[in-house]
Parts: sequence; structure tokens; C-alpha cells
Amino acid sequence: PEAAQAQLFAALERMVGFVVASPQAGEIVQFILRELSHPTAALDRIYDGVFEPSHRRLCQLWEQATGEPAESEATRLTVFTLIGQVIYFRIGREAVMRRMGWPDIGAAEAAKVVAVTSGNLKAILAARKGAKTKGQRP
Amino acid sequence: PEAAQAQLFAALERMVGFVVASPQAGEIVQFILRELSHPTAALDRIYDGVFEPSHRRLCQLWEQATGEPAESEATRLTVFTLIGQVIYFRIGREAVMRRMGWPDIGAAEAAKVVAVTSGNLKAILAARKGAKTKGQRP
Repeated sequence: PEAAQAQLFAALERMVGFVVASPQAGEIVQFILRELSHPTAALDRIYDGVFEPSHRRLCQLWEQATGEPAESEATRLTVFTLIGQVIYFRIGREAVMRRMGWPDIGAAEAAKVVAVTSGNLKAILAARKGAKTKGQRP
Repeated sequence: PEAAQAQLFAALERMVGFVVASPQAGEIVQFILRELSHPTAALDRIYDGVFEPSHRRLCQLWEQATGEPAESEATRLTVFTLIGQVIYFRIGREAVMRRMGWPDIGAAEAAKVVAVTSGNLKAILAARKGAKTKGQRP
């Protein structure tokens, strides 16, 4: 489970690095947003080729890390929340920069996003562990 | 702190109810997405009139619930992650429905999103409490 947990944190950090901090992610995310709101054949290719395999892989890591079945509804939804908390910093970039007083979201700002989203993941994993070992739901 | 925590959970549930489940949210979210990617004067009004006041209010609730300063960078970023995990279920709706095998996201599906996002919030709050009372970082 420790190795799988480490892989989850690494995946989160990579996702922030690409989605939030890399300049080229802007164009790609805009393209995917257009496809999500008005699906064409391109969305089928993105979904089947990239999205679903990546999501399944994260769900498998989740099972290895927590013992919760990879394809359970709860696991699939939890993985969406982990992705969502990161993606928002790209989609809501303009609002985030205004509220944070950041002139840009570069490497330094991305590191702060990694710290907060990793902290959330750590808490969510710790709650699972607590519920399992102590037989209580925190 | 308990009252503020209850208000945070209530705010999360309201946000899911509106953003994820209500049919009219689709148009509104599309409009805001367009503004966020190509800001016009409308974004200034939405940001100043709705977005920033709501975000500040959630940050104040966070301070009351956890003791962490409302306007600290960590609190502002944490509140963004709480919003982001919910908003994604609207923005990524098409991908979510495919992956979940849901024909639609209505009240029943929204209740499952509430369960998972509330579980995350509970875990994140519990980690704060654990760190404070036991002097350890979980």
C-alpha cells in the first residue's frame, strides 16, 4: 500500500505540473472543454484513448493504497474529486489569480497547489486507514 | 467550530445541488467558462459581485471551523480545492457519465457526489483536528 500511495502522490504532482503550470496545457484544456460541452468524434478518441485508461489506472492505485475495490462507485467518484481539485486551478485560473493576488501561475505557485492538494490526499488516505484499523469512521 | 463545520457541509451540499444537479447550471457554467477563458467586463462583475464574496465567506467559515486564518494562502487554496472537486462534475459531466455508466446526473447521482465530496471534507477537517490536538501530522 505504501508504494501505491507514493504513486498516487506522484501522479497528483505530475498532474499539477502539467495541467496547472505548463503553458501548453491552456490550449489543450480549452480544446477538451469544448469537446466536453459539444462532444464530437474527437471526444470518443480522447475518452477511450487517454481519459478512461488514466482514470482506471488511478482507481487501481487507489485499491492498492486503500483496499477499496478499484471499480466501486465510491472509488471512481473519489478519483474524480482528486482530478477535479487540480483541474480547477487551470479552468478557474483567472479567478484563482485574482483571489490569490498572483500575477501568473508558474512553478512557485504550482508548488503551493501541490502542497494543498497533496495535503488533501494525505487526509483522505489517513481517514481510510483510521476507519480500517480503529473500526471507526472519522 | 461545530456550527461552522456544519455550515461548510451545508454549503458543499448546496453547491452540488446547484452546480451538478440543476439543469439551468449547464448554461451558467458554460457562460462563466467562456468568461474565464476570454475575460470581458462581465467577468469583473461576476468576480466582484459573486465569486470573491462567496469565496471569502467560505474562507471565514474555514477559519471558524479549523482555527486557520481565513485569508492565509493555504486557506484560500484549500477552499478552491473544495470548490474544484464539485465543479468538475459539471464541467467533466460527459466524461463522468461515461465512466460511471450514468445516463444522466440527476438527484440520485448528485446524492452520491455529495457523499464522496462530504467524505473528503470530513477527512480534511479530521486531519486538522488530529494535527492540532495530538501535535502530529497525519
